[in-house]
Amino acid sequence: MPAVETDMVGPFRKVDFLSGTSAVELIEPPKDVAQRFLNGDGPAPPRFARVTLVRGSADPPDVMEYKVGPILGCGTAGCDTASLETATIEPMLAPGAVPFQKRPYELSDSAVNDLALGALSELRALLVAATGPVWDIIPDCDECHAPGMGHIQALPFNDFTSSSTDRISIVRFFWYQSRDQLQAMWLHPMPIHFRFSQPSADASAFRLFDFVFCSQGPFASAAAVAAAFESGAIDMCHIAPLIGVDGVAGAWDVPGPAVGETGRPGLVPQPPRSRRFSLGSDVGGNNGRSVSWMGWDFFATVRPSTGLAAMDLRFKGKRVAYELAHSEAVAMYSGNAVDQVFYLDSAYSMVQLSGGLMPGVDCPTDAAYLNATSWAYFDAANFSLGSDVSRAFPLRAACIFERVSDATVWRHTQFVDHTPDGAGAPSLVVRAVATVGNYDYITEFEFATDGSVEVSMIFAGYMETRYYLPDGVSNYETKLGAVVHDKLVAPLHSHFANFKVDLDVVGHVNSVQKTEAKAGKLAGVPLNTANGEIVTKYVESSILEVEGTEASTCVPDVRHPAVWTFINEAERSADLGLAPGYAILPGATVAQALPDDHPFVKAAEFTKYTIAVTKRKEDEARASSVYDLYAPGEPIVSFDSFLDGESIRNEDLVAWVTIAKEHVPRTEDVPLITNFGTSFGLKPWNMFDKNAGMDVQRSAPVK
Amino acid sequence: MPAVETDMVGPFRKVDFLSGTSAVELIEPPKDVAQRFLNGDGPAPPRFARVTLVRGSADPPDVMEYKVGPILGCGTAGCDTASLETATIEPMLAPGAVPFQKRPYELSDSAVNDLALGALSELRALLVAATGPVWDIIPDCDECHAPGMGHIQALPFNDFTSSSTDRISIVRFFWYQSRDQLQAMWLHPMPIHFRFSQPSADASAFRLFDFVFCSQGPFASAAAVAAAFESGAIDMCHIAPLIGVDGVAGAWDVPGPAVGETGRPGLVPQPPRSRRFSLGSDVGGNNGRSVSWMGWDFFATVRPSTGLAAMDLRFKGKRVAYELAHSEAVAMYSGNAVDQVFYLDSAYSMVQLSGGLMPGVDCPTDAAYLNATSWAYFDAANFSLGSDVSRAFPLRAACIFERVSDATVWRHTQFVDHTPDGAGAPSLVVRAVATVGNYDYITEFEFATDGSVEVSMIFAGYMETRYYLPDGVSNYETKLGAVVHDKLVAPLHSHFANFKVDLDVVGHVNSVQKTEAKAGKLAGVPLNTANGEIVTKYVESSILEVEGTEASTCVPDVRHPAVWTFINEAERSADLGLAPGYAILPGATVAQALPDDHPFVKAAEFTKYTIAVTKRKEDEARASSVYDLYAPGEPIVSFDSFLDGESIRNEDLVAWVTIAKEHVPRTEDVPLITNFGTSFGLKPWNMFDKNAGMDVQRSAPVK
Ligand SMILES: [Cu+2]
Ligand SMILES: [Cu+2]
Repeated sequence: MPAVETDMVGPFRKVDFLSGTSAVELIEPPKDVAQRFLNGDGPAPPRFARVTLVRGSADPPDVMEYKVGPILGCGTAGCDTASLETATIEPMLAPGAVPFQKRPYELSDSAVNDLALGALSELRALLVAATGPVWDIIPDCDECHAPGMGHIQALPFNDFTSSSTDRISIVRFFWYQSRDQLQAMWLHPMPIHFRFSQPSADASAFRLFDFVFCSQGPFASAAAVAAAFESGAIDMCHIAPLIGVDGVAGAWDVPGPAVGETGRPGLVPQPPRSRRFSLGSDVGGNNGRSVSWMGWDFFATVRPSTGLAAMDLRFKGKRVAYELAHSEAVAMYSGNAVDQVFYLDSAYSMVQLSGGLMPGVDCPTDAAYLNATSWAYFDAANFSLGSDVSRAFPLRAACIFERVSDATVWRHTQFVDHTPDGAGAPSLVVRAVATVGNYDYITEFEFATDGSVEVSMIFAGYMETRYYLPDGVSNYETKLGAVVHDKLVAPLHSHFANFKVDLDVVGHVNSVQKTEAKAGKLAGVPLNTANGEIVTKYVESSILEVEGTEASTCVPDVRHPAVWTFINEAERSADLGLAPGYAILPGATVAQALPDDHPFVKAAEFTKYTIAVTKRKEDEARASSVYDLYAPGEPIVSFDSFLDGESIRNEDLVAWVTIAKEHVPRTEDVPLITNFGTSFGLKPWNMFDKNAGMDVQRSAPVK
Repeated sequence: MPAVETDMVGPFRKVDFLSGTSAVELIEPPKDVAQRFLNGDGPAPPRFARVTLVRGSADPPDVMEYKVGPILGCGTAGCDTASLETATIEPMLAPGAVPFQKRPYELSDSAVNDLALGALSELRALLVAATGPVWDIIPDCDECHAPGMGHIQALPFNDFTSSSTDRISIVRFFWYQSRDQLQAMWLHPMPIHFRFSQPSADASAFRLFDFVFCSQGPFASAAAVAAAFESGAIDMCHIAPLIGVDGVAGAWDVPGPAVGETGRPGLVPQPPRSRRFSLGSDVGGNNGRSVSWMGWDFFATVRPSTGLAAMDLRFKGKRVAYELAHSEAVAMYSGNAVDQVFYLDSAYSMVQLSGGLMPGVDCPTDAAYLNATSWAYFDAANFSLGSDVSRAFPLRAACIFERVSDATVWRHTQFVDHTPDGAGAPSLVVRAVATVGNYDYITEFEFATDGSVEVSMIFAGYMETRYYLPDGVSNYETKLGAVVHDKLVAPLHSHFANFKVDLDVVGHVNSVQKTEAKAGKLAGVPLNTANGEIVTKYVESSILEVEGTEASTCVPDVRHPAVWTFINEAERSADLGLAPGYAILPGATVAQALPDDHPFVKAAEFTKYTIAVTKRKEDEARASSVYDLYAPGEPIVSFDSFLDGESIRNEDLVAWVTIAKEHVPRTEDVPLITNFGTSFGLKPWNMFDKNAGMDVQRSAPVK
């Protein structure tokens, strides 16, 4: 296998480098090949990696993906080295198809540094006047930083004004007191930000613009800011961290009780339990495991880019789904023309910035764990992050445990004799926790004894915040979010979590049935009473025929209940004529409120639909693209293009399920969010001729 | 105290009798009196009972309520007998205000028996032809019943065509195989039903009408049915129970595994834990207890009529709510002019038909329990139910336990070093289980360390079902519900659970703030970019001024997120100007789809609103009335009359929260429903200056 020249510390240079959260990731085998293997009708599919190469040296520069393999990986006999000699490399993209400007976010990217520090240097006097001498990152400046005044962290973020010809970042600065509480930076945005343009791979073309100082601007340059201030055109603000109060243990901006506050106890330690689930052999470093529990069989894994996934899900021997996978997490924030931001978190990765799960808090102490592959490293000497695929290591990214339940799967009291009866409802949880900068996403698949699966997304971590001037030019910030501390607002934002739900109900040829609950008169139903005619509730069932934004998507409507079920029309029961199915039941959610032409929406069109059904295709593997973090208005993946009118009756179908929360901030989300979330359920629907939990051992009735 | 003449076995006779689920129930003291006591500014309010007397002997007959007391009840010094001498009786209703025809449902009511048995007798040949010889209740009829053919249970239900001048019941018949599996009757409706009219207290005026046989009718009398059959105008149906298959252990219609089916294990028994909550002294037979846990203090009780309630809720010393109470559970079914039904379950009682909770299934084995007072008794000799207040007994109706949690109240990984941190999220659950005939309602208040409360309603038990003729006159039933077994449909129905949420945020004078998330342009916000103008999300806040169906109610709208918070405007913080509040956050729910003039809706107008805010009034104690089970079109309580335009700004307010589920039946709801439910949350909103769970003991970070 030929070597690829990489350079992980200078992605802005005219070199080639592996990059992104899918830098090296398993290519899912084609479903038909995998199915034949799963059905015992074919060999195990060969394994290939997708390798993402940013070609800064190309003319024009671009991003390429290559299919590399087959790779044997690691097995019981040890790890594969033979395939280094035999593997082939095939391009998966046409050169130029993905512009260099849309390349993945790169943790090692330090391209902005020199320009940014130069600009800060120019503005040193203004900055110190606004915030005090906290600017340790400004070189050669004694008055910029005083001992004990904490530190500044610079971070470039994807900017929505990026285009395929100009990669724009927004560069922000955060204050923190001490390295062990770096996290407090999320509540200390500094009153300066600007845009950074990288129109090509040529560093000489890079520039800074759209400077905003103390909410005033944008200005074309640092010099323009300084001139405006000198001419009296803009005002000074005063947003200095409170030294000794902010960013230290016991402070408002750091987790834990205040100094002197009486604490409350946490979880009661649970004794270890004998394990009632079984795991397949630990081959390949625990990156995926087959799981069996109480009639459920599936394979669980954590993908570097998109996180938790389960494959080949079966319940009581019946095929339920080929794939259930977290596909994307999106956050979209309010903001003005310079600071409005959004994130496709899979582009930042559901793994790379995460921490190994903490037994006793993230998962019960007797949980089993799954690893994911991370290649983000922390350079302690420079207190900086880097990314290097050659330094990949396993990260404890998910856990599997049986939930201690106090619920019942069924329960009844016979009314004549006050005698209760029922059966408990144990469940198996597969949980991943992904940290993406400030936010933590807790994703759960909960498998129940009735054949249902509850898919949850729980939000944790730090909110994004902005300084504002209560009596000044940016007091409109209180309408873009909520005040959570002195001169600090948390912007209103929407969280969307997208899941790929490739249901295969007793086989992969399915249709979608919509069952609507309505009220009115119905032909044939006698509705005349002595008091006049009444109406009745009734159901109206239909089967979806084609893809389309009207034809195959929905959002829940409280006033018009409907149930969407995947059904297998070929398997209708002989006696009752019922097609076995699985329903998709969204929990409380919200839908996209921004207009279709907003760049955030264009890069994440799935956010418009709670459920969208499409014909399954190998080349429609995900609802979004890692490349659309930049230039969202020119997306590589337009989800709406999936909805192009093909038949979805008796086809292999995918439901893209998006559950969402509008996060209206409150003071109780400081320092860290009070964890909250939402979920959707998958439930068997005429799949079994009775409650599939009926065989769970009941407890003896106790008077 | 003068004696009241009662007669519990002949409520149709011209006598007086205590009746209903509030036959004898504590009258809540006026809030101002109770508050003075709770604040240490006044004595304990005296206790009075409301006694409901049906006056069959009056002319015209009516229903009266009396305030009886003061009653000392039972204390540490024993039970009160003195007040029997000193108590006074004051009428609480004007004579005639509640017509006799709207009297409570009475378990002991056997008024229909003679007429019904006579009618069945007339139809004996038709019935046996349709169902086989299962009619053991038809007197003096050898051919009606053969040994081993099971039994018939007759039940009268409230009928929606009742009026204030004519009490109409619908009389239905159910088959069951054996007394120990009486419950299977809910899946064996017999193909005969008719209406029963009781226009007065005079039994000579009672009559049967609207006979339906094998889905055909209605006919004016049994004789008319027989004549129609003889003339060939109606067809015979064949809906015979399968003897040896139906209604026995292991059958499709009885809980538990099928004979020979391999069972799965149930819950893992949990070792008993040392209790971390404390309970007030067990005075008065355990009908109510003060509870303290992790900063929460409240009083929990179970009311005979409406079930679970908590009073005087405080968190971290701050007043949160005066009352949080289950107020009503409603089920509304599809159906034709003769069989469309609805239930106000509090009128059947959330206690009287329930069973004592089963440790290990209904609650963890180490839970504490609360009793409720039941006076429904089972007459084993006659295999029948009765109701007699003088035979009241305690029923283990609710439990209190700490949930074994695997969740976190906050959680974060510092991104530089992959180090996770977080605190577990224990919670305290108060759970009541109410059985009302076929249905079981599991009501939960879950108290969390962040000051939030999650209020859940979980549905369990048997569905109502109807026979139908797949190729016959009633095949429209498949559109009124879903086929769940041979010739058996479960009708579509809506469940609504109403809760009285009397929030008192840091005092009882509150307002309601509506915070809406919108998208668009906003004055003052710069939105011009190099790519043109964009829009932004923003919040629009307003305070509700007056009651009204438009002004103070809402249902969630997925496309227009909004947060409703109770706030205390007088307690705005000096620094940030934030008013402390509590938000009401509905889970997935549905709203009423039937029109306003439908009798079901008139008796339960609250079902139109997920949240409805009213000014609190002593005489608007509940959202519905026990008297509106009959004559729902002429309700005693019209909830909409609460919404009569009064100011709700800086007043004592109540939120009536209705969470609902549309139950589209499926085969997996047979024999017993696969338990499902919904919930709403109460969350502090700018009530604390940070996440109120920050003082929960965190776990040490583990790599
Ligand atoms: Cu958020
Ligand atoms: Cu139901």
